[in-house]
Amino acid sequence: MVGEPGRNRRIPEAIVVRLPVYQRILAELLRGGTATVSSEELATRARVNAAKVRKDFSLLGWFGTRGTGYDTAYLATQIDRALGAARDWPVAIVGIGNLGRALAGSEGFSSHGFRVAWLFDADPSVVGHVVGSTRVAHVDELPAMLGAAHPAIGVIATPAVAAQQVADLLVAAGVPSILNFAPRLLTVPGEVLLRSVDLSIELQVMSFHLQQADGDLRRPAHWP
Amino acid sequence: MVGEPGRNRRIPEAIVVRLPVYQRILAELLRGGTATVSSEELATRARVNAAKVRKDFSLLGWFGTRGTGYDTAYLATQIDRALGAARDWPVAIVGIGNLGRALAGSEGFSSHGFRVAWLFDADPSVVGHVVGSTRVAHVDELPAMLGAAHPAIGVIATPAVAAQQVADLLVAAGVPSILNFAPRLLTVPGEVLLRSVDLSIELQVMSFHLQQADGDLRRPAHWP
Repeated sequence: MVGEPGRNRRIPEAIVVRLPVYQRILAELLRGGTATVSSEELATRARVNAAKVRKDFSLLGWFGTRGTGYDTAYLATQIDRALGAARDWPVAIVGIGNLGRALAGSEGFSSHGFRVAWLFDADPSVVGHVVGSTRVAHVDELPAMLGAAHPAIGVIATPAVAAQQVADLLVAAGVPSILNFAPRLLTVPGEVLLRSVDLSIELQVMSFHLQQADGDLRRPAHWP
Repeated sequence: MVGEPGRNRRIPEAIVVRLPVYQRILAELLRGGTATVSSEELATRARVNAAKVRKDFSLLGWFGTRGTGYDTAYLATQIDRALGAARDWPVAIVGIGNLGRALAGSEGFSSHGFRVAWLFDADPSVVGHVVGSTRVAHVDELPAMLGAAHPAIGVIATPAVAAQQVADLLVAAGVPSILNFAPRLLTVPGEVLLRSVDLSIELQVMSFHLQQADGDLRRPAHWP
């Protein structure tokens, strides 16, 4: 039984963020030849509880069979569809330093329908290089190249100081969504989808937990 | 009024993840000379609602003044304390490709108490290089170097195929927490804190929203 995921209702963001996690787990199960999977197994691997898995899927209109669980291949297809993985999402990356190169070369940026189609940098010593199979263009060429081509997603991997200016260029070129890796809060018009990734947030979440587990009074004597 | 954040109760993970976001906003406000901030202003910048901001802070024992808001500097100090930012958290990074270099050089990995103290790679052409001010050691040296030094956090930035083996090495060396950037689900003992960052998850969240906003029927004619 399948609903129309999210066409007529709003899927909570917390569920949207878990979908790629479920998707990766299902892909690993499929590679291992697993035909059906229980909510308990999915929950253990996704590090959530089984009731949450069942609630997430039922909200999206996907139901398992009692005693058997979910059809792995079917569930994977549904999640792919919800995430738009069957479509083509051309991506432009601005800032081709270590992070930009890592993103351009990452598996995640060249699967699930994503296709790194444009690379831009402001550094003349980087412009003209070919990364993957894409030539790095100068950021001055961005308005003309993207204004005509309409990428789905613009990725900002520049230093913080350049990020807002690059965001403005992407918005002016009509890019509907921006993924920002620069450590700077950006301002974009309300109709532009902006999400930010702070590579250090997870580190800080870890130090929070270490701090909680540890406490100044219980700090191990051997810690430097 | 200040409670003891989280010493005696469990802070929901969703709040922990928002603390670094609030922290960055407060740092920007402080740089701009803002002495007090309302929950509405924090909410707008953090892209949550004001009631959630007030609830987050009250759960942590932090309260604003009606009509005035929160003391910016005080709140920043409390969040730093909760996140353990005043402590020293030595970090080891394994995998010094583009991503490992980007992480080693990132502002977030050399602030908030974090200190990149060890770099490891398996590639002889990388071993011996100095990245930042740290020499890249061979991963074979990891057990001896980390077993004696006890880093707080191990970061895995290797290709997927090497990730589990590196996780096993880090666990064996007594590293209490692991941050994994490799696109692979890892298995570690229950007492080890493991968190994973999938650089493509945010891309997938974006394609979900683009898909929802767009729909196949309303796909713009100009989209390639």
